[in-house]
Amino acid sequence: MRWDEIGNEACSVARTVGVIGDRWTLLILRDCFLGVRRFDDFQARLGVTRHVLADRLKKLVEEGILAKVKYEDRPPRYDYRLTDDGRALHPVIMAIVHWGDTHRVTKKGRPLLHTHKTCGHVFDPVMTCSHCAEPLTARAVEVRPGPGAAA
Amino acid sequence: MRWDEIGNEACSVARTVGVIGDRWTLLILRDCFLGVRRFDDFQARLGVTRHVLADRLKKLVEEGILAKVKYEDRPPRYDYRLTDDGRALHPVIMAIVHWGDTHRVTKKGRPLLHTHKTCGHVFDPVMTCSHCAEPLTARAVEVRPGPGAAA
Repeated sequence: MRWDEIGNEACSVARTVGVIGDRWTLLILRDCFLGVRRFDDFQARLGVTRHVLADRLKKLVEEGILAKVKYEDRPPRYDYRLTDDGRALHPVIMAIVHWGDTHRVTKKGRPLLHTHKTCGHVFDPVMTCSHCAEPLTARAVEVRPGPGAAA
Repeated sequence: MRWDEIGNEACSVARTVGVIGDRWTLLILRDCFLGVRRFDDFQARLGVTRHVLADRLKKLVEEGILAKVKYEDRPPRYDYRLTDDGRALHPVIMAIVHWGDTHRVTKKGRPLLHTHKTCGHVFDPVMTCSHCAEPLTARAVEVRPGPGAAA
Protein backbone atom coordinates (compact mmCIF):
# COMPACT_ATOMS: atom_id res chain seq x y z
CA MET A 1 0.00 0.00 0.00
CA ARG A 2 1.23 3.48 -0.77
CA TRP A 3 0.87 6.31 1.71
CA ASP A 4 -1.49 8.31 -0.46
CA GLU A 5 -3.87 5.33 -0.37
CA ILE A 6 -3.80 4.70 3.35
CA GLY A 7 -6.51 7.24 4.20
CA ASN A 8 -8.99 5.20 2.15
CA GLU A 9 -8.49 1.96 4.05
CA ALA A 10 -11.54 0.71 5.99
CA CYS A 11 -9.85 1.41 9.31
CA SER A 12 -10.33 4.43 11.54
CA VAL A 13 -6.70 4.32 12.68
CA ALA A 14 -5.47 4.38 9.08
CA ARG A 15 -7.83 7.23 8.20
CA THR A 16 -6.70 9.31 11.17
CA VAL A 17 -3.04 8.48 10.63
CA GLY A 18 -3.51 9.62 7.02
CA VAL A 19 -4.38 13.07 8.43
CA ILE A 20 -2.12 13.43 11.49
CA GLY A 21 0.42 10.58 11.21
CA ASP A 22 3.33 12.79 10.38
CA ARG A 23 5.74 13.85 13.08
CA TRP A 24 5.73 17.55 12.30
CA THR A 25 1.96 17.53 12.03
CA LEU A 26 1.66 16.12 15.55
CA LEU A 27 4.00 18.80 16.92
CA ILE A 28 2.09 21.53 15.04
CA LEU A 29 -1.12 20.26 16.64
CA ARG A 30 0.54 20.23 20.07
CA ASP A 31 1.42 23.90 19.55
CA CYS A 32 -2.12 24.72 18.36
CA PHE A 33 -3.50 23.37 21.64
CA LEU A 34 -0.93 25.53 23.46
CA GLY A 35 -2.39 28.61 21.71
CA VAL A 36 0.13 29.09 18.90
CA ARG A 37 -1.54 30.53 15.78
CA ARG A 38 1.00 32.32 13.61
CA PHE A 39 3.29 30.90 10.98
CA ASP A 40 6.41 32.60 12.37
CA ASP A 41 5.64 31.41 15.90
CA PHE A 42 5.26 27.79 14.75
CA GLN A 43 8.49 28.13 12.84
CA ALA A 44 10.44 29.61 15.75
CA ARG A 45 9.19 26.95 18.18
CA LEU A 46 9.64 23.94 15.90
CA GLY A 47 12.79 24.90 14.04
CA VAL A 48 11.27 23.32 10.94
CA THR A 49 11.91 24.67 7.44
CA ARG A 50 9.35 27.16 6.13
CA HIS A 51 8.67 24.86 3.20
CA VAL A 52 7.79 21.85 5.39
CA LEU A 53 5.74 23.99 7.79
CA ALA A 54 3.75 25.59 4.93
CA ASP A 55 3.10 22.15 3.47
CA ARG A 56 1.83 20.69 6.77
CA LEU A 57 -0.35 23.73 7.58
CA LYS A 58 -1.86 23.64 4.08
CA LYS A 59 -2.74 19.98 4.51
CA LEU A 60 -4.31 20.63 7.94
CA VAL A 61 -6.44 23.42 6.40
CA GLU A 62 -7.47 21.14 3.50
CA GLU A 63 -8.44 18.44 5.99
CA GLY A 64 -10.59 20.88 7.96
CA ILE A 65 -8.45 20.62 11.11
CA LEU A 66 -7.25 24.23 11.02
CA ALA A 67 -8.93 27.34 9.61
CA LYS A 68 -6.79 30.03 7.97
CA VAL A 69 -8.22 33.31 9.26
CA LYS A 70 -7.29 36.84 8.19
CA TYR A 71 -6.54 38.90 11.28
CA GLU A 72 -5.14 42.03 9.61
CA ASP A 73 -6.12 43.74 6.36
CA ARG A 74 -3.12 45.91 5.43
CA PRO A 75 -0.96 44.07 4.87
CA PRO A 76 -3.14 40.94 4.80
CA ARG A 77 -2.04 38.58 7.56
CA TYR A 78 -3.44 35.20 8.47
CA ASP A 79 -3.33 32.91 11.43
CA TYR A 80 -4.26 29.27 11.91
CA ARG A 81 -6.99 28.27 14.35
CA LEU A 82 -8.28 24.87 15.38
CA THR A 83 -11.72 24.07 13.96
CA ASP A 84 -14.23 21.92 15.88
CA ASP A 85 -12.84 18.88 14.02
CA GLY A 86 -9.35 19.95 15.08
CA ARG A 87 -10.30 20.45 18.70
CA ALA A 88 -11.76 16.94 18.63
CA LEU A 89 -8.16 15.70 18.31
CA HIS A 90 -7.46 16.87 21.87
CA PRO A 91 -7.72 13.34 23.35
CA VAL A 92 -5.10 12.13 20.85
CA ILE A 93 -2.64 14.81 21.97
CA MET A 94 -3.48 14.27 25.67
CA ALA A 95 -2.91 10.52 25.31
CA ILE A 96 0.44 11.16 23.60
CA VAL A 97 1.46 13.67 26.29
CA HIS A 98 0.53 11.27 29.05
CA TRP A 99 2.55 8.38 27.69
CA GLY A 100 5.57 10.67 27.45
CA ASP A 101 4.89 11.99 30.97
CA THR A 102 4.83 8.47 32.40
CA HIS A 103 7.20 6.50 30.14
CA ARG A 104 9.76 9.02 28.86
CA VAL A 105 10.07 11.41 31.78
CA THR A 106 13.49 12.43 33.08
CA LYS A 107 14.55 12.74 36.74
CA LYS A 108 13.68 16.44 36.61
CA GLY A 109 10.01 15.61 36.23
CA ARG A 110 7.31 16.51 33.73
CA PRO A 111 7.98 19.30 31.23
CA LEU A 112 4.41 20.58 31.54
CA LEU A 113 1.70 20.35 34.16
CA HIS A 114 -1.95 20.21 33.11
CA THR A 115 -4.65 21.75 35.29
CA HIS A 116 -8.33 20.97 34.81
CA LYS A 117 -10.04 24.34 35.15
CA THR A 118 -13.37 22.68 35.98
CA CYS A 119 -12.07 21.20 39.24
CA GLY A 120 -8.89 23.24 39.66
CA HIS A 121 -6.54 20.27 40.04
CA VAL A 122 -3.44 19.07 38.24
CA PHE A 123 -4.59 15.87 36.57
CA ASP A 124 -3.71 12.87 34.47
CA PRO A 125 -5.94 12.05 31.50
CA VAL A 126 -7.77 8.75 32.00
CA MET A 127 -9.42 6.92 29.10
CA THR A 128 -12.77 5.53 30.20
CA CYS A 129 -15.76 3.61 28.84
CA SER A 130 -18.71 5.78 27.71
CA HIS A 131 -21.11 3.15 29.05
CA CYS A 132 -19.83 2.19 32.52
CA ALA A 133 -17.31 5.06 33.04
CA GLU A 134 -14.62 2.61 34.23
CA PRO A 135 -11.02 3.18 33.08
CA LEU A 136 -10.23 1.14 29.97
CA THR A 137 -7.41 -1.36 29.66
CA ALA A 138 -6.28 -2.98 26.43
CA ARG A 139 -7.15 -6.45 27.70
CA ALA A 140 -10.73 -5.44 28.54
CA VAL A 141 -11.49 -4.31 24.99
CA GLU A 142 -12.83 -6.72 22.39
CA VAL A 143 -12.96 -5.79 18.73
CA ARG A 144 -15.27 -7.10 16.01
CA PRO A 145 -16.07 -5.98 12.45
CA GLY A 146 -18.58 -3.13 12.22
CA PRO A 147 -20.92 -2.13 9.37
CA GLY A 148 -18.09 -0.23 7.64
CA ALA A 149 -15.66 -3.16 7.60
CA ALA A 150 -13.99 -4.07 4.32
CA ALA A 151 -15.96 -6.71 2.37
CA MET B 1 15.71 20.65 14.66
CA ARG B 2 16.51 17.29 13.09
CA TRP B 3 14.30 14.29 13.64
CA ASP B 4 16.95 12.32 15.50
CA GLU B 5 17.06 15.14 18.05
CA ILE B 6 13.35 15.50 18.60
CA GLY B 7 13.10 12.75 21.22
CA ASN B 8 15.41 14.75 23.48
CA GLU B 9 13.27 17.88 23.54
CA ALA B 10 11.78 18.80 26.94
CA CYS B 11 8.28 17.94 25.75
CA SER B 12 6.35 14.74 26.34
CA VAL B 13 4.63 15.00 22.97
CA ALA B 14 7.98 15.26 21.18
CA ARG B 15 9.40 12.34 23.15
CA THR B 16 6.42 10.14 22.36
CA VAL B 17 6.31 11.23 18.75
CA GLY B 18 10.00 10.32 18.56
CA VAL B 19 8.95 6.73 19.37
CA ILE B 20 5.61 6.30 17.60
CA GLY B 21 5.29 9.30 15.28
CA ASP B 22 5.78 7.35 12.11
CA ARG B 23 2.78 6.26 10.11
CA TRP B 24 3.80 2.63 9.69
CA THR B 25 4.67 2.43 13.38
CA LEU B 26 1.17 3.56 14.35
CA LEU B 27 -0.40 0.95 12.05
CA ILE B 28 1.93 -1.76 13.43
CA LEU B 29 0.80 -0.82 16.94
CA ARG B 30 -2.84 -0.92 15.85
CA ASP B 31 -2.25 -4.48 14.63
CA CYS B 32 -0.45 -5.44 17.86
CA PHE B 33 -3.54 -4.42 19.84
CA LEU B 34 -5.63 -6.56 17.45
CA GLY B 35 -3.47 -9.57 18.36
CA VAL B 36 -1.07 -9.68 15.42
CA ARG B 37 2.37 -10.99 16.45
CA ARG B 38 4.21 -12.45 13.48
CA PHE B 39 6.32 -10.71 10.89
CA ASP B 40 4.53 -12.32 7.93
CA ASP B 41 1.12 -11.43 9.34
CA PHE B 42 2.09 -7.77 9.81
CA GLN B 43 3.46 -7.76 6.29
CA ALA B 44 0.37 -9.34 4.72
CA ARG B 45 -1.97 -6.94 6.54
CA LEU B 46 0.00 -3.76 5.96
CA GLY B 47 1.38 -4.38 2.49
CA VAL B 48 4.58 -2.67 3.61
CA THR B 49 7.99 -3.72 2.32
CA ARG B 50 9.88 -6.26 4.45
CA HIS B 51 12.71 -3.79 4.82
CA VAL B 52 10.53 -1.01 6.27
CA LEU B 53 8.63 -3.45 8.50
CA ALA B 54 11.86 -4.96 9.88
CA ASP B 55 13.20 -1.47 10.56
CA ARG B 56 10.07 -0.33 12.44
CA LEU B 57 9.82 -3.56 14.47
CA LYS B 58 13.51 -3.30 15.41
CA LYS B 59 12.99 0.25 16.63
CA LEU B 60 9.92 -0.74 18.67
CA VAL B 61 11.95 -3.54 20.30
CA GLU B 62 14.83 -1.13 21.04
CA GLU B 63 12.37 1.32 22.59
CA GLY B 64 10.92 -1.40 24.84
CA ILE B 65 7.46 -1.23 23.24
CA LEU B 66 7.59 -4.74 21.77
CA ALA B 67 9.44 -7.83 22.97
CA LYS B 68 10.88 -10.25 20.41
CA VAL B 69 10.03 -13.69 21.77
CA LYS B 70 11.17 -17.07 20.43
CA TYR B 71 8.11 -19.31 20.04
CA GLU B 72 9.72 -22.22 18.17
CA ASP B 73 13.18 -23.74 18.49
CA ARG B 74 13.72 -25.66 15.24
CA PRO B 75 13.82 -23.65 13.17
CA PRO B 76 14.07 -20.68 15.51
CA ARG B 77 11.03 -18.44 15.05
CA TYR B 78 10.15 -15.23 16.81
CA ASP B 79 7.09 -13.15 17.36
CA TYR B 80 6.53 -9.63 18.61
CA ARG B 81 4.51 -8.97 21.76
CA LEU B 82 3.50 -5.75 23.44
CA THR B 83 5.39 -5.08 26.66
CA ASP B 84 3.79 -3.23 29.59
CA ASP B 85 5.20 0.01 28.15
CA GLY B 86 3.67 -0.90 24.81
CA ARG B 87 0.28 -1.74 26.28
CA ALA B 88 0.37 1.68 27.98
CA LEU B 89 0.02 3.16 24.47
CA HIS B 90 -3.53 1.79 24.26
CA PRO B 91 -5.18 5.17 25.01
CA VAL B 92 -3.20 6.71 22.13
CA ILE B 93 -4.53 4.11 19.69
CA MET B 94 -8.07 4.33 21.14
CA ALA B 95 -8.05 8.14 20.80
CA ILE B 96 -6.87 7.82 17.18
CA VAL B 97 -9.53 5.18 16.42
CA HIS B 98 -12.24 7.34 17.95
CA TRP B 99 -11.41 10.44 15.95
CA GLY B 100 -11.53 8.35 12.78
CA ASP B 101 -14.81 6.74 13.90
CA THR B 102 -16.42 10.13 14.45
CA HIS B 103 -14.70 12.41 11.90
CA ARG B 104 -13.71 10.14 9.02
CA VAL B 105 -16.49 7.58 8.98
CA THR B 106 -18.27 6.69 5.73
CA LYS B 107 -22.02 6.17 5.25
CA LYS B 108 -21.52 2.44 5.82
CA GLY B 109 -20.60 3.06 9.44
CA ARG B 110 -17.64 2.20 11.62
CA PRO B 111 -15.12 -0.36 10.37
CA LEU B 112 -14.76 -1.89 13.84
CA LEU B 113 -16.92 -2.02 16.95
CA HIS B 114 -15.28 -2.02 20.39
CA THR B 115 -16.89 -3.87 23.28
CA HIS B 116 -15.88 -3.28 26.89
CA LYS B 117 -15.70 -6.78 28.38
CA THR B 118 -16.08 -5.38 31.90
CA CYS B 119 -19.61 -4.08 31.26
CA GLY B 120 -20.42 -5.94 28.05
CA HIS B 121 -21.37 -2.86 26.00
CA VAL B 122 -20.17 -1.36 22.75
CA PHE B 123 -18.53 1.89 23.84
CA ASP B 124 -16.79 5.07 22.86
CA PRO B 125 -13.55 5.97 24.65
CA VAL B 126 -13.95 9.11 26.77
CA MET B 127 -10.95 11.03 28.06
CA THR B 128 -11.58 12.13 31.64
CA CYS B 129 -9.85 13.95 34.51
CA SER B 130 -8.12 11.71 37.08
CA HIS B 131 -9.21 14.08 39.84
CA CYS B 132 -12.91 14.85 39.21
CA ALA B 133 -13.64 12.13 36.59
CA GLU B 134 -15.41 14.62 34.31
CA PRO B 135 -14.84 14.37 30.55
CA LEU B 136 -12.02 16.68 29.41
CA THR B 137 -12.33 19.35 26.76
CA ALA B 138 -9.43 21.27 25.28
CA ARG B 139 -10.77 24.58 26.58
CA ALA B 140 -10.95 23.31 30.17
CA VAL B 141 -7.26 22.39 30.26
CA GLU B 142 -4.62 24.90 31.35
CA VAL B 143 -0.94 24.23 30.83
CA ARG B 144 2.04 25.58 32.76
CA PRO B 145 5.75 24.67 32.91
CA GLY B 146 6.56 21.71 35.14
CA PRO B 147 9.81 20.77 36.91
CA GLY B 148 11.16 19.18 33.74
CA ALA B 149 10.63 22.25 31.53
CA ALA B 150 13.53 23.53 29.43
CA ALA B 151 15.60 26.16 31.23
